[in-house]
Amino acid sequence: MENLNISNNQIKQFRLLKEKKYRQESAMFLVEGQKMIEEALRSVYILDTLICTSEWAESHRDLTKIFMGNLCLATSRQIEQISNLNTPQSVLGVLKIPHFKIEFPGCCKELCLFLDSISDPGNLGTILRLADWFGIEDVFCNLGTVDLYNPKVVQATMGSIFRVKVHYIDGVAFLNQYCNKSGNAIYGASLQGENIFQASLDKKGLIVLGNESTGISKEIEGFIDKKIFIPSYPEKRNTAESLNVSVAAAIICSEFRRRNH
Amino acid sequence: MENLNISNNQIKQFRLLKEKKYRQESAMFLVEGQKMIEEALRSVYILDTLICTSEWAESHRDLTKIFMGNLCLATSRQIEQISNLNTPQSVLGVLKIPHFKIEFPGCCKELCLFLDSISDPGNLGTILRLADWFGIEDVFCNLGTVDLYNPKVVQATMGSIFRVKVHYIDGVAFLNQYCNKSGNAIYGASLQGENIFQASLDKKGLIVLGNESTGISKEIEGFIDKKIFIPSYPEKRNTAESLNVSVAAAIICSEFRRRNH
Repeated sequence: MENLNISNNQIKQFRLLKEKKYRQESAMFLVEGQKMIEEALRSVYILDTLICTSEWAESHRDLTKIFMGNLCLATSRQIEQISNLNTPQSVLGVLKIPHFKIEFPGCCKELCLFLDSISDPGNLGTILRLADWFGIEDVFCNLGTVDLYNPKVVQATMGSIFRVKVHYIDGVAFLNQYCNKSGNAIYGASLQGENIFQASLDKKGLIVLGNESTGISKEIEGFIDKKIFIPSYPEKRNTAESLNVSVAAAIICSEFRRRNH
Repeated sequence: MENLNISNNQIKQFRLLKEKKYRQESAMFLVEGQKMIEEALRSVYILDTLICTSEWAESHRDLTKIFMGNLCLATSRQIEQISNLNTPQSVLGVLKIPHFKIEFPGCCKELCLFLDSISDPGNLGTILRLADWFGIEDVFCNLGTVDLYNPKVVQATMGSIFRVKVHYIDGVAFLNQYCNKSGNAIYGASLQGENIFQASLDKKGLIVLGNESTGISKEIEGFIDKKIFIPSYPEKRNTAESLNVSVAAAIICSEFRRRNH
């Protein structure tokens, strides 16, 4: 593959990937740093363009030699112009946005998450990282959820974006199908739920997590078979009103896995 | 109390509270929004100055009537100049930074947290919120930990800052005292630890959480009696390398409380 110096036009194009509109039009997104590039190359994702300094290319010949996409050489200053990080790295990648097919009942054989309009990029990234840790392979997001390819989400996943399949779906239509085809229970994290440590939890199922401020929406709530609640300590006390959604997700996933190990 | 319109000099002073240096010099910090003000007034913290629009003051006479501090009226534009939020609220407060005395053995009767150089403001805020949820009253931070009164930390606590006592201490000196005076075990979250679900956990103790990138530092590690680990699922799998520190803290605190309810 020939190495080419990056053009001003390319810089402009890659900078546009900060915006959801342009990511959707081009079906491309940006990742930053060596760890993310390595994880991308080991995944099903397609790395379209590798942008790096000539020093980086020089010291990673093993990698650049076998790389089949476009290799763009850039100065640190040019990388800074494209980067979304406070401390830009020497390498970035432009990847194709994949589309994972949802197949019933295949996608509901196991434990999955359903995110009802999670809006904070850090929360979505953290939830995917913990889904990866707990072996949850499919995460369903309704259309009100923050975009997975938002640079803050991508970096917060710490590479888990390449291992967990995220599907954006019409929530109600999906849940109708899930109910009809899976035979599994739908659990919802709710302050009005049953103590999770006393509730019966199946090995399979769908865990619904709601928006940071408004919780689970009315139209989704009707699908929930069992509401579960993380008890505070002591149980009756003038305490925090709720837990952060990614923290709640972590405790719930950990408890499902502990029980069904 | 007389109401006074805010002066340009005051705006300048309050803006400076974004900086740690100035917060330390003045021993003051800023909170934003009605919920935070209400929580502050119910707490041991001293609200020095209330900054609000005249409309807010008008519709909260019950509150402003009994308020003994300085009341500054400001326009929405002036509040915007002081605010750290994307969507500034109609009310802000300037509070005195308190100093909580550490008394042995009083401070080690219960379950406490020790934060070893947590650097992300969102993580510190989330950890305090979950400490509050799980009835953990004292959190010890070594001096490398991000400042509690950083505006991002304050807002991420969602009011828990007013219920959990946070102490900045010299880590090694504190742990020496803790070992000598408490008789409790020191636990550390570590990828090399024992499966937390199989480990014995006391009702009392100190849980050490390390920095986001570098983990628990060498000088602190020597004090740990028992390393604990959150198992991934399945246990042996090519998965995420680690969990976010606030997510790990949540699962650990939840497990201590579940066992010793």
